[in-house]
Amino acid sequence: MTRAAVLGAGSWGTTFAKVLADAGSDVVLHARRPELAKAIAEDAENADYLPGVRLPERLRATADPAEALAGADVVVLAVPSQSLRDNLGAWRALLPPDATLLSLMKGIELGSTKRMSEVICEVTGAGPERVAALSGPNLAREIAEEQPAATVIACSDGDRAAVLQAACHTAYFRPYTNPDVVGCELGGAVKNVIALAAGIAEGLGFGDNTRASLITRGLAETARLGMALGAELTTFAGLAGLGDLVATCSSPLSRNRTFGEKLGRGMSLEEVQRGTRQTAEGVKSCRSVLDLARAHGIDVPITEAVVRVCHEGEAPAQMVREIMSREAKPE
Amino acid sequence: MTRAAVLGAGSWGTTFAKVLADAGSDVVLHARRPELAKAIAEDAENADYLPGVRLPERLRATADPAEALAGADVVVLAVPSQSLRDNLGAWRALLPPDATLLSLMKGIELGSTKRMSEVICEVTGAGPERVAALSGPNLAREIAEEQPAATVIACSDGDRAAVLQAACHTAYFRPYTNPDVVGCELGGAVKNVIALAAGIAEGLGFGDNTRASLITRGLAETARLGMALGAELTTFAGLAGLGDLVATCSSPLSRNRTFGEKLGRGMSLEEVQRGTRQTAEGVKSCRSVLDLARAHGIDVPITEAVVRVCHEGEAPAQMVREIMSREAKPE
Repeated sequence: MTRAAVLGAGSWGTTFAKVLADAGSDVVLHARRPELAKAIAEDAENADYLPGVRLPERLRATADPAEALAGADVVVLAVPSQSLRDNLGAWRALLPPDATLLSLMKGIELGSTKRMSEVICEVTGAGPERVAALSGPNLAREIAEEQPAATVIACSDGDRAAVLQAACHTAYFRPYTNPDVVGCELGGAVKNVIALAAGIAEGLGFGDNTRASLITRGLAETARLGMALGAELTTFAGLAGLGDLVATCSSPLSRNRTFGEKLGRGMSLEEVQRGTRQTAEGVKSCRSVLDLARAHGIDVPITEAVVRVCHEGEAPAQMVREIMSREAKPE
Repeated sequence: MTRAAVLGAGSWGTTFAKVLADAGSDVVLHARRPELAKAIAEDAENADYLPGVRLPERLRATADPAEALAGADVVVLAVPSQSLRDNLGAWRALLPPDATLLSLMKGIELGSTKRMSEVICEVTGAGPERVAALSGPNLAREIAEEQPAATVIACSDGDRAAVLQAACHTAYFRPYTNPDVVGCELGGAVKNVIALAAGIAEGLGFGDNTRASLITRGLAETARLGMALGAELTTFAGLAGLGDLVATCSSPLSRNRTFGEKLGRGMSLEEVQRGTRQTAEGVKSCRSVLDLARAHGIDVPITEAVVRVCHEGEAPAQMVREIMSREAKPE
């Protein structure tokens, strides 16, 4: 039986801890705030981030990272992307030396433009074969409600990928394996930026034709950047690319899409942020995605437009028409 | 100035006639029923299929095919797919000999498993260079309301494609050209079948994760079949593939998605059909898509499932879980 520690008790971390427990793994969920850990342990519910979902009895919760990590074969990282480096620095000495480190995070680090697996290797000293990423059309709330979903577990070490697959395979959650860590991580990070753009378009009153065009162009932009970084094209056509992008751009449950929608309706970035408990990763990541693209000479017009709207004060009103009209002539 | 005849005054034919007129082309719209032609001509509105949309003054309408076709450089075909052969047979003698024949239709002929452009060539004797297909994320109602949209015009003759492009290019409608007629037509036809599946899943209560997985698997299925027929893979990654599929599977305006939703909620095929004025192309096309796939030895699990639900009495309840669980192990 796999012993797993899930670090980060937001909606996705909590949901994935439930999936692991339902798959028969021995799981401890770590919440930073003692009162949240206590509430999860006592009430079998994470009322802050996943209200109304009954968590399995066997899922334990603690605010003590040492307790969560003791004896773990699998360490699941589910903290906000931009806080990973600091968090991991604090946990480093507690990590079991051969544990597989699985990232649920969807972001690119500001400044360094590193993917989450790169940050993990750098901070922990783990070799890339010990680090995996999970990504797919995985809106947390739907999975918490046990609706059927599929995902991709990317790891260069096939044996570790197979262990992770077994550790989280349930009747409602089907993981597939893929050696392409770069592609899975990039698909997950850029989709948040494209979802912001889709939300902005929706907030402005545009319909499904526009959204579908944004998704199509957005996937092309993601794949161009991914290929330059060494990812496989087929990853972007799969669940961790197209699948995740479509789910995130379409769902009212997506934080990034919802955040964008409010921007499109005319709220300022600060106004939207004040009303939001959880992170819309794309607001920060859009800048690091753009930096990464520029460093590799890749054209990412949708990401550029999102950066202009989120960080350079451009009015959303012109943005969508600009994107729709700047496409190259031959498709 | 292009002189265009649009044959078929459903919502998409009427919308595209408006687009042509707005682009400055000289357009005559042909409606089969004289009372509809008269109403369109007199009221500048197609109250049956596009209520509330004001049509341009310069758009003429007639129930006389000879009047519509006289002197046309471009003949736009927008009738239900399964009636194309009969309709075209009746109009054949009226077609100007060098006119470009543009198909707006999204279907595969039952029995013959021919694409619409193949039926056009066969019935009219036109060479393939005279026949074009238009496809993309083009929900008629949104375009009629002049929301920005993009589309793909596929024609093996680049000069004819450029003429068509100019004839329908407006501030809100951007056509791109692509020589891959097979890919565009196939993307358009199979997406209706996948949209039925997406609708069925929605009717059963499944959310965006499931829909995104269906879209991802559905595009893969479409591309596999397309490649076997000689289409280009890149077409499926573009507006006529992914773009059209996403728009159709997501929108409440999509007839096929809506039809599927009612099936998923438990209505019988006959009950849904009784309440529907316009054709849900996928209900018929799913059988010809499956025949085509079998003839080429291609596995199309979603199409198979839709055929079973629509025509073999299978209960929708098991269908989605079956599709979600039958995917191959390595992604």
